[in-house]
Amino acid sequence: METATTTRHRARRHDPESRRVSLHQLPWRQVTNPYPPIQPLSADQIESIHRASLTILKEIGMKVLLPEARKILRQAGADVDEASQVVKFDSGLVQQALTTVPAKFTLYARNPARNIIMGGNHANFGTVGGPPYAHDLERGRRTGTLADFTELVKLAQSLNIVHFLAGSAPEAQDVPVPIRHMVMAKAVLAHSDKVPFGSTITQARIEDVFELVRMARGVSREQMLREPSYYSVINTNSPMQLDGAMAWGVIGFAERNQALCITPFTLLGAMAPVTIAGAIAQQNAEALAAITLSQIVRPGAPLIYGGFTSNVDMRSGAPAFGTPEYIKACLIGGQMARRYNMPYRSSNTNASVWPDAQATYEGAMSIWGALMGGTNMLLHGVGWLEGGLVASYEKYIIDAEMLQTMAEFFTPTVVDDSTLAIDAIREAGHGGHFFGVQHTMERYETAFYTPLLSDWRNFQQWEASGSVDATHRATKIWKQLLADYEEPKLDPAIAEEMDAYIDRRTREGGAPYI
Amino acid sequence: METATTTRHRARRHDPESRRVSLHQLPWRQVTNPYPPIQPLSADQIESIHRASLTILKEIGMKVLLPEARKILRQAGADVDEASQVVKFDSGLVQQALTTVPAKFTLYARNPARNIIMGGNHANFGTVGGPPYAHDLERGRRTGTLADFTELVKLAQSLNIVHFLAGSAPEAQDVPVPIRHMVMAKAVLAHSDKVPFGSTITQARIEDVFELVRMARGVSREQMLREPSYYSVINTNSPMQLDGAMAWGVIGFAERNQALCITPFTLLGAMAPVTIAGAIAQQNAEALAAITLSQIVRPGAPLIYGGFTSNVDMRSGAPAFGTPEYIKACLIGGQMARRYNMPYRSSNTNASVWPDAQATYEGAMSIWGALMGGTNMLLHGVGWLEGGLVASYEKYIIDAEMLQTMAEFFTPTVVDDSTLAIDAIREAGHGGHFFGVQHTMERYETAFYTPLLSDWRNFQQWEASGSVDATHRATKIWKQLLADYEEPKLDPAIAEEMDAYIDRRTREGGAPYI
Repeated sequence: METATTTRHRARRHDPESRRVSLHQLPWRQVTNPYPPIQPLSADQIESIHRASLTILKEIGMKVLLPEARKILRQAGADVDEASQVVKFDSGLVQQALTTVPAKFTLYARNPARNIIMGGNHANFGTVGGPPYAHDLERGRRTGTLADFTELVKLAQSLNIVHFLAGSAPEAQDVPVPIRHMVMAKAVLAHSDKVPFGSTITQARIEDVFELVRMARGVSREQMLREPSYYSVINTNSPMQLDGAMAWGVIGFAERNQALCITPFTLLGAMAPVTIAGAIAQQNAEALAAITLSQIVRPGAPLIYGGFTSNVDMRSGAPAFGTPEYIKACLIGGQMARRYNMPYRSSNTNASVWPDAQATYEGAMSIWGALMGGTNMLLHGVGWLEGGLVASYEKYIIDAEMLQTMAEFFTPTVVDDSTLAIDAIREAGHGGHFFGVQHTMERYETAFYTPLLSDWRNFQQWEASGSVDATHRATKIWKQLLADYEEPKLDPAIAEEMDAYIDRRTREGGAPYI
Repeated sequence: METATTTRHRARRHDPESRRVSLHQLPWRQVTNPYPPIQPLSADQIESIHRASLTILKEIGMKVLLPEARKILRQAGADVDEASQVVKFDSGLVQQALTTVPAKFTLYARNPARNIIMGGNHANFGTVGGPPYAHDLERGRRTGTLADFTELVKLAQSLNIVHFLAGSAPEAQDVPVPIRHMVMAKAVLAHSDKVPFGSTITQARIEDVFELVRMARGVSREQMLREPSYYSVINTNSPMQLDGAMAWGVIGFAERNQALCITPFTLLGAMAPVTIAGAIAQQNAEALAAITLSQIVRPGAPLIYGGFTSNVDMRSGAPAFGTPEYIKACLIGGQMARRYNMPYRSSNTNASVWPDAQATYEGAMSIWGALMGGTNMLLHGVGWLEGGLVASYEKYIIDAEMLQTMAEFFTPTVVDDSTLAIDAIREAGHGGHFFGVQHTMERYETAFYTPLLSDWRNFQQWEASGSVDATHRATKIWKQLLADYEEPKLDPAIAEEMDAYIDRRTREGGAPYI
């Protein structure tokens, strides 16, 4: 049996691909999705889910582990039982919160040309966030380090289709925990000028990253409070629980007017009902609880409605992604977000442990589900592998190709006399060809999407150059992108200011998790 | 550099996967697509293309190489120039033909349980058709033989998600040409009870396959003339030409009331204008010419509107598939078919030479473009590789997984008190889990799609079982499907009748291509 991790040495001798060729990418652009979303449910069915969520919040309630959060909710009129820590929400309280959530907002990057809009029909693509491990075909699977993290920040900066950076891909496990959030934030801010991510875990960490982002942008605290300049993601602790760290995230981000994506992680049959309607009702109830907390702290605080509902393998309990259930949940999640007139976040996921055909089709199914669900923020857009345990260098490239394809698919098709080309058809003649026709000559260089990864040569040419499959070609591409990486230089004075801040906070002991 | 075609022998020792496990498939079903199609163009833009096509047919016309076809068209009122062989179509003639094309019809299989409906929101999936070569990971790339063809017929029969067989996948090149159409038809009819394909090339071959299909169904000629029982595909010779073989196909299939898919093969910048609008206008003009010929021969003859427009690599002229341009063309082709109230055919294609991540993402993009374009007939649904030069055994399995995923995604999501599951959420409790909840126990065995190919185990389990990637797992699956294949036995008397027919026709010299 041939396997995924094998080597055929004879191929190396013939490999003319080792020569450096220039890589084609789409230019940076804001992507907008012109298509109406795919809607599995009717408006009535969406209302049924909405009502079920309100019932869940009213009758079952949310267990909120943070006393400060319970206090805020109680003062706003929620029914709080301190003994059980359960907060029950009157529907009016939830409805009031929904009236103040912004439908659309700008996320400001340190390079204004990399600002992005969250909401409307904008589709923004981010990197994988959260994996403890990194993987590439040359160095194998490994515990994440700052060096891996920094490389993948550079790769994200180099890929034009990436709009924002996600947190810890991989987690820099060689950096002490109390200062890791600052060291990683500095790595992002120094090596990328795209929208960054910041930790929600503890008030001190939120403040540290807020300050570092402020310095990188070179703006005042007042301006930062007006302009969301980074974002984070909180998960609820499904079912129906919000822990202290996540609650602090909601409060801290609202206080600072920074963007927060609220994403219950509701696996069907595990942390949520085995039926899609029930899982979405619960996802939605949990999201509404956190949305309510946020809007009480600061009406108008920028939020993104996150959906992350999928099924599990009922034989093993392992999470599954890119499945039919996942596609449906992505699409229905988008319907819920639009019900509340909020930006929507979804993800490009898969459950494969190798950047192979499975990772690719599960990813493609996720991408279509997410984007045709009206996703504004595609988290894990590039690089996710192993159900999120691994940041895969090769998957960055495979995913970038798929996302570029979607971005180009989203461009308008022009229909006019020039593009209808009746004269060109006349000129080519019956049974002729269009290669030399004037209409072709004027347009051929820019007429079509040029791929990053796809190899369109014939079998003989492909074989003669070493029979390198797409996954292994992706290795060459990320290596070349890293070799060609251009650093978006920070002003040296800003870099010094950031380093001084991190030095001081390090001397103070950083921000341990307590 | 590691490559695609390599072997790591040590993996074999540990491989517990060599044990036989039962394969999961969805049951056979008619697939219906509940979603409104994605529409890149407005109704006005579609009308502009329609009008451009009529102008092309009126002013430039179609070169029709078959005298008999020109005669039929002239008698119906077309403007025929015998010297140039160019037929110019008055718009009224085309519009008249469009009034008689059926919107929907049944294709009858020899097993009535395998009948399929063409039209409406039905989505039917077929095998790859036409490749001269076969490929699998164990035996490599090879010129197609009857043995390969027969194996792939059995594989298509075994895959429940396959609704119909395509022609020559691969072409049985070891069978003499004059009798090949009969030998291949017999192989399909003996080893599969799904809707078969028949050649259009020469009147004699059309008649031969018609008779063999009739015998296999055990029906009269009169019944066959009422019931479309097989289908074929013609391409035009783009730009704006219809050769003798294809014209005979249009006439012969219309005369026999069998289903014909009319598919111009219009590569942007090569056989069609470099602009999508122009390529579709030309595709549509060519299709309308053939549709008109068919409906003159027999008003109401069953047709399928085929779209096959993609771009080329403008550096090499090589065709590209699954590109942004391809997706758009699939969707716009569907808009044209609906403009004419006809069933729509599109394809699952890719330009990769290996069943790898590229083949998979280009295929996934094609599948979404085709199905969200409202495709009723997905040709090349499973097995296409190398731009159609190769029937890939592994790609059959990768594609079957993707098509099953789409079929399940197309099922309705039920929203009612039972699926909203508020009581289950109450029972699981805050921070609990749903594995043991009654609501889960009652449903978990059938709640989710079970994959054919995806491996959801963790990295350690996957590595311990030999690190077999999805492409190599596909090898195991097609082998097991072939081992488990059950022949849908033909009545021995019918098989004898078919053999006697083929023997007689062989003695007569078969049907050479003249």
